Amino acid sequence: MRIIVDGMGGDNAPAAIVEGAVLASKKIRDEICLIGRQDEIAAELAKYDFDESRVSIIDASQVIETEEAPVRAVRTKKDSSIVKGINMVKNGEADLFISAGNSGALMAGGLFILGRIPGIDRPAIASTYPMLGQGVAMLVDSGANSECKPRNLLEFGIMGSIYMDKVMGIDSPRVGLVNIGTEENKGSTLTKAAYDLLEKSDINFVGNVEARDVPNNACDVIVCDGFVGNVVLKLTEGLAMSIARRIKKKFTSGVKATVGALFLKNKLGELRQEFDYSEYGGAPILGVKGPIVKMHGSSNANGVMNSIIKAVPYAKEGVVDIIQSQVLEIEEIAESE
Amino acid sequence: MRIIVDGMGGDNAPAAIVEGAVLASKKIRDEICLIGRQDEIAAELAKYDFDESRVSIIDASQVIETEEAPVRAVRTKKDSSIVKGINMVKNGEADLFISAGNSGALMAGGLFILGRIPGIDRPAIASTYPMLGQGVAMLVDSGANSECKPRNLLEFGIMGSIYMDKVMGIDSPRVGLVNIGTEENKGSTLTKAAYDLLEKSDINFVGNVEARDVPNNACDVIVCDGFVGNVVLKLTEGLAMSIARRIKKKFTSGVKATVGALFLKNKLGELRQEFDYSEYGGAPILGVKGPIVKMHGSSNANGVMNSIIKAVPYAKEGVVDIIQSQVLEIEEIAESE
Repeated sequence: MRIIVDGMGGDNAPAAIVEGAVLASKKIRDEICLIGRQDEIAAELAKYDFDESRVSIIDASQVIETEEAPVRAVRTKKDSSIVKGINMVKNGEADLFISAGNSGALMAGGLFILGRIPGIDRPAIASTYPMLGQGVAMLVDSGANSECKPRNLLEFGIMGSIYMDKVMGIDSPRVGLVNIGTEENKGSTLTKAAYDLLEKSDINFVGNVEARDVPNNACDVIVCDGFVGNVVLKLTEGLAMSIARRIKKKFTSGVKATVGALFLKNKLGELRQEFDYSEYGGAPILGVKGPIVKMHGSSNANGVMNSIIKAVPYAKEGVVDIIQSQVLEIEEIAESE
Repeated sequence: MRIIVDGMGGDNAPAAIVEGAVLASKKIRDEICLIGRQDEIAAELAKYDFDESRVSIIDASQVIETEEAPVRAVRTKKDSSIVKGINMVKNGEADLFISAGNSGALMAGGLFILGRIPGIDRPAIASTYPMLGQGVAMLVDSGANSECKPRNLLEFGIMGSIYMDKVMGIDSPRVGLVNIGTEENKGSTLTKAAYDLLEKSDINFVGNVEARDVPNNACDVIVCDGFVGNVVLKLTEGLAMSIARRIKKKFTSGVKATVGALFLKNKLGELRQEFDYSEYGGAPILGVKGPIVKMHGSSNANGVMNSIIKAVPYAKEGVVDIIQSQVLEIEEIAESE
């Protein structure tokens, strides 16, 4: 299998990307191609020992920056690492594209270059959501679609369930709908209608989940529109950071506290680890005709390595084909509305 | 001033409510009437010393339970503490009604008995949102209106700003719109249109805030529809509890950690305190023709006391009249859309 890694995307590119790719190449047997400005990537690669038959460079002269308008960037920068990399997946020259770059451009590239899986109305970004000491859930959609129809939430639930099963190895994943109450008749027009559709599907739909229970292992696939998904993901990050800062401040004020914190150093490190999203891999774009994975923009080498390794089954297990095979069921349920 | 306190609402009623009312009566000079089943409240009151000229009981034979359908309950239970209490505000027999009972019934009672302030399309519940060590913000709407028009978000911003100023004592409060990006053109159809309206108003609108920054003092009044507000509030509670549980588990496993935690006992207590919503008072229902405040259902005596004391300015500062005086501005901006 051939994995294309965007050497130019993210806050720490190309250094962390190249290092992470080299680390990953020592743990998996697939071919890794770093795509981007040849000389910059080569200079980084020269720092490491690696198997040259399994790590290579593909030149791409342009870079899509994080702040660029995605659609325009994808349309105009034909020789960018993102556009060229996704084209390789389309043309069958590669099996997987992974990038820490501009999320919007990855989604736009997926839509314009690979195209939607026929019957999937809205491809989505599924982010990993860590649940302190209780594993990880997938949040679908985490921000690509700020306005959704009920059918889209059904698609998110089915695609998320397949990914969680095939890629994350969770058998019969529990799919929950984020709502403002657990009773069936609660919520907005959107969530009420989506509830009815999800209930008709073959997935393990566990009903509505309140935001309060999301971090506490209420389900394995968290379904919501992209606006709510963005709020859930960003609020979790922001609050965890606020609490960590607050703990640090409290635990370093006064001699007694400082001594106590010394005793707890290992435990505090473990806690921080549990919040480290990069442990759990990147965010797949689900619903396009080929595997694209978005890594966190601030990924370090370790995060890049994890994202590459964990993304492999997205291609190997044929997740795109499995989603495609479920489209008829989606159509049938959506039409019954 | 006369404050009616619902003796029958909340998980710890009537015991915690009566105790909290007695505690409050020693700190404020206003008259407090406990409303509910006379004998049950009297039995609790008998446990305390208090000034009988300032704490009294009003009999109400019925109780609206937490799980009851709000509208039906308010329509049928005419002698419930909630319906009778709100009627006293309506008839000018009292200045403020405060309850830890069924939120939906409080909102329904506000709408049917007091009525909307003319020109306010959607009354809202404004909840306190604690920002670790950085004071408190008001979240409007925190759950009453799961579907909103842009005009409603303008109303929330203006009402929240008035409350924050007059009741919480924050001068020129910063009003932020919860959105999926900070740029002006970001978001859903709703947030884009609401942005334009809020920008035209006289309040101190600071623009879009990302959920990531909400817990970190991005603004004093957090404006969003009730679905998003419910997610923000509940996720914050749930995540804080998850983290607290996780810290407790980590800090009590192994001798070294346990010793460290002993040294940090005071600091851990302070941290817990910062998350205690009840410190900051209850949640006002804004936009109805009289002051109603919802206390947290699980309020203990201390929370009840705080909620009563902090609610006083909602009536004394004439917040309802001030909101009324802003209605023309709201109409003007909304019509310019």
